[in-house]
Amino acid sequence: MNGPNAVLLLSCPDQKGLVANISNFIFQQNGNIVHAAQHTSMRKKIFFMRIEWELEGFNIPRDEIGDVFKHTARKFDMTWSLHFTDTVPRMAIFASRHLHCLYDLMLRHRMGEFRAEIPVVIGNHEELRSLVEPFGLRFECFPITPDTKVSQEKKEIALLKKERIDAIVLARYMQILSGRFIREYPNRIINIHHSFLPAFAGPKPYQQAYDRGVKIIGATSHYVTQKLDDGPIIAQDVIKISHRDSVEDIQLKSQDLERIVLARAVRLHLENRILPYGSKTVVFE
Amino acid sequence: MNGPNAVLLLSCPDQKGLVANISNFIFQQNGNIVHAAQHTSMRKKIFFMRIEWELEGFNIPRDEIGDVFKHTARKFDMTWSLHFTDTVPRMAIFASRHLHCLYDLMLRHRMGEFRAEIPVVIGNHEELRSLVEPFGLRFECFPITPDTKVSQEKKEIALLKKERIDAIVLARYMQILSGRFIREYPNRIINIHHSFLPAFAGPKPYQQAYDRGVKIIGATSHYVTQKLDDGPIIAQDVIKISHRDSVEDIQLKSQDLERIVLARAVRLHLENRILPYGSKTVVFE
Amino acid sequence: MNGPNAVLLLSCPDQKGLVANISNFIFQQNGNIVHAAQHTSMRKKIFFMRIEWELEGFNIPRDEIGDVFKHTARKFDMTWSLHFTDTVPRMAIFASRHLHCLYDLMLRHRMGEFRAEIPVVIGNHEELRSLVEPFGLRFECFPITPDTKVSQEKKEIALLKKERIDAIVLARYMQILSGRFIREYPNRIINIHHSFLPAFAGPKPYQQAYDRGVKIIGATSHYVTQKLDDGPIIAQDVIKISHRDSVEDIQLKSQDLERIVLARAVRLHLENRILPYGSKTVVFE
Amino acid sequence: MNGPNAVLLLSCPDQKGLVANISNFIFQQNGNIVHAAQHTSMRKKIFFMRIEWELEGFNIPRDEIGDVFKHTARKFDMTWSLHFTDTVPRMAIFASRHLHCLYDLMLRHRMGEFRAEIPVVIGNHEELRSLVEPFGLRFECFPITPDTKVSQEKKEIALLKKERIDAIVLARYMQILSGRFIREYPNRIINIHHSFLPAFAGPKPYQQAYDRGVKIIGATSHYVTQKLDDGPIIAQDVIKISHRDSVEDIQLKSQDLERIVLARAVRLHLENRILPYGSKTVVFE
Repeated sequence: MNGPNAVLLLSCPDQKGLVANISNFIFQQNGNIVHAAQHTSMRKKIFFMRIEWELEGFNIPRDEIGDVFKHTARKFDMTWSLHFTDTVPRMAIFASRHLHCLYDLMLRHRMGEFRAEIPVVIGNHEELRSLVEPFGLRFECFPITPDTKVSQEKKEIALLKKERIDAIVLARYMQILSGRFIREYPNRIINIHHSFLPAFAGPKPYQQAYDRGVKIIGATSHYVTQKLDDGPIIAQDVIKISHRDSVEDIQLKSQDLERIVLARAVRLHLENRILPYGSKTVVFE
Repeated sequence: MNGPNAVLLLSCPDQKGLVANISNFIFQQNGNIVHAAQHTSMRKKIFFMRIEWELEGFNIPRDEIGDVFKHTARKFDMTWSLHFTDTVPRMAIFASRHLHCLYDLMLRHRMGEFRAEIPVVIGNHEELRSLVEPFGLRFECFPITPDTKVSQEKKEIALLKKERIDAIVLARYMQILSGRFIREYPNRIINIHHSFLPAFAGPKPYQQAYDRGVKIIGATSHYVTQKLDDGPIIAQDVIKISHRDSVEDIQLKSQDLERIVLARAVRLHLENRILPYGSKTVVFE
Repeated sequence: MNGPNAVLLLSCPDQKGLVANISNFIFQQNGNIVHAAQHTSMRKKIFFMRIEWELEGFNIPRDEIGDVFKHTARKFDMTWSLHFTDTVPRMAIFASRHLHCLYDLMLRHRMGEFRAEIPVVIGNHEELRSLVEPFGLRFECFPITPDTKVSQEKKEIALLKKERIDAIVLARYMQILSGRFIREYPNRIINIHHSFLPAFAGPKPYQQAYDRGVKIIGATSHYVTQKLDDGPIIAQDVIKISHRDSVEDIQLKSQDLERIVLARAVRLHLENRILPYGSKTVVFE
Repeated sequence: MNGPNAVLLLSCPDQKGLVANISNFIFQQNGNIVHAAQHTSMRKKIFFMRIEWELEGFNIPRDEIGDVFKHTARKFDMTWSLHFTDTVPRMAIFASRHLHCLYDLMLRHRMGEFRAEIPVVIGNHEELRSLVEPFGLRFECFPITPDTKVSQEKKEIALLKKERIDAIVLARYMQILSGRFIREYPNRIINIHHSFLPAFAGPKPYQQAYDRGVKIIGATSHYVTQKLDDGPIIAQDVIKISHRDSVEDIQLKSQDLERIVLARAVRLHLENRILPYGSKTVVFE
């Protein structure tokens, strides 16, 4: 409903004057800050900031902002990225046989909950086509076997590059991506794991939860790193269970969690609200 | 563990340059910001900020900061207050016959969870004395009847003034304070109501919840205003119930909520994290 | 995965021997009880029970069970109903312009989460057709104006009767049903209200929640009665919000709640787990 | 408020007629069932039941009920125990330096939330005495070193036996009990672990949670078994955290959870609502 804004995400060693310098940079060019949040990791002495301001009336043209800001950034040794709220990110979804997250993402996309385009949905089973195409989305099938994994991943990456994909969502995708694939999209591949990580990492978390007799189950969305189920956590949620819940009941309850937690993580990512650092995330909600 | 900090709480009409001006004020005097949060109410175009910086190394002596800042404040038409983290607020607790919140606050105080002194606990029943004094706290009894209410409240206010009380906590205090009393401590009297407001305002909320057959109950902590159970909400929490829960079960479950929600509200207030505006609050957690 | 079971739902004045009599009725006919739950309302002295047993090996043919049980029922003045788990209930969905609940129900139906057929989806806007029919479901449009309400409702009821509809789900249906309509389906019309009832009954609950400044919002599914938003509550859930949430944010968060709470209520109803009494429900989860 | 009831807790291989036989046993002796709950583990084919009936009017004197019931029990190969609601269990509390759970239990005891006597509080630090004795409770100090552990545990067990202790609560007790100790009180020692088990078992769970960057933390109450932090789980609860929470913040939030989860587990145990089996529990709430 408003004009486009600029969003600056940054982190750097903590020191005096950071907030003043950054807000001055915006104010002196006549920018109106509409949202700002910062955090300082006391242990690591790292400063994190997300700051959003209106482009309307800002003295620097949008395509020159980075060139101007980089001097400030260099001075404070910042890692930073600049985004615009009218840019529509391009998101690819990977799915396998468990369809609730895929469906949920497609529905939310259709209902306008995500500011994103979905140029392609990728699956390893041809049966997904008939579910995806009625949503007006393109489906591409890349069956994976141990023998074909390397070559298929190469083709997938080529397609993702061609489609200029910004973010990849693994909607209960049952294949483990290779290190080569992951390195192409650092902190841009979002996974949903159907347990409250770090509990019940690995296969069959519903069964593990049932066997252990926990009274609460969870779901975890995280960025994919080379170490399985160990990437920076973006969002988690939980629900109570009891001795009455069978593994099938656990699955049914968990699926609702998975849909909500994955959708929340995707939205936070698309709105540039996440700053990963090491094995953790700062999430500016 | 760190040196004392200054905390500035402010609100004003939204306009360009607020963050830059405020952060410059601190930076130019060599202050190190350790925490800052702001919020803009888009509907009302009001800007809210909480900013905290280290006094160590700050060029302005602490007792002159207000005198210097008031010029900035006036320029932007700010409502503001300045606090120091080594000031220990003085808190009075009011209690009646339901003791769980009173006990909880006294225990948390003893365990060092609150940065506050408790110079006096006030009750309308003499029986409370034997519970309060073993905690090393002073107890004063002001029995209230319709006839004595005005005179007793006057004495209470005199005592609170004499003890330089900053904040008053109604720990399930069963008397309704007069408008005269409330006006003495605007947004400084914290109440706990044993329902999820605005549902079940007024008397007997456990019974009301039972009769309505809700599946979740709650507790609400709010600032006391002249309109009963209608002040700005600080904190709320809920717990699930079922048809198996009797009114007594609801009470038992609710009491845990009430203790936690009231303690959270008290802590937020003592740490100067709450900005009330109209019938609402901005809470910078 | 198992053979069909019989489910008996009953309530009656509490007295000695109820459990023994009912379980004997089943055991003496060689039935194997797989699930039983009872509840006694201590205030009203009413006994509630849900008991489920295997039809395989049971001595009484399924279509004669009622005839045999009615003697026991009469003796104890029971209100009761008998169900079979291989009966597939027939459910109609009513929807208007807010589509998230409709979509969610259709998806869950497609994914096999509900044991139910959906013979018809009814809406008051023709635009819904293109969303419903791709799911392989029949759509019927009944536009409602103050003038046509009586006649259109008659047609709706005729259609529902013809389709032998057992349960009606109002998936954010924006029309108020007449008393005449409601009386046709007592405790069989399930509504979702987008607030934590009894707070914020009536129109615009998102706006009401925003204006009151609550810190938690909720959603409530209930049976429809003549008094608006006042029927027996089946399920509720909540989510935290903060001062940062606009009315639009509240809507987005609430919609997730609404989908989950409505789906849970529908599933409980379809599995014959709900015993309404007065303005409340006993839910045997 | 009512007369005393009998409570039967039992488990056995599942078979037809269990509910009928048990409820007949009670009904034929003129017992009035006030609460009954059962569960069948479909995987293991084990039947669990908790059944409670009024002693008033029951034909069998209370001290002969077991002798009569044992014939039914033997027939169905039941593991069972019989309790009476007017028996006041005798509970010992063990504590170390973290006092919030100890305080909480003593307060709840004083406020009448537990039906239990606390004949002794045991600690390994003499400083606890001044906190415990003002509550009118006896304190005994057993300092533990690697050299004295065996002998001190023997003395503790002797004291517990002499005091006819039924249940032991480890209120953040920092010593690991020996296998010898645990075998004396199988499924009668209740521990609180300050994480959402099985995540972050072992030492320093707050630090582990901080380092992993989880978005939710939890607390777990369980029966103590020989394998550390691995006994049957009785109760769990969780609370959200964010990147803003330091280890100290996590501790503060967790302590509220620990108090509530431990109190809930203690109450369930005292009311004979828990049936442990293998590494899990059936909890009849």
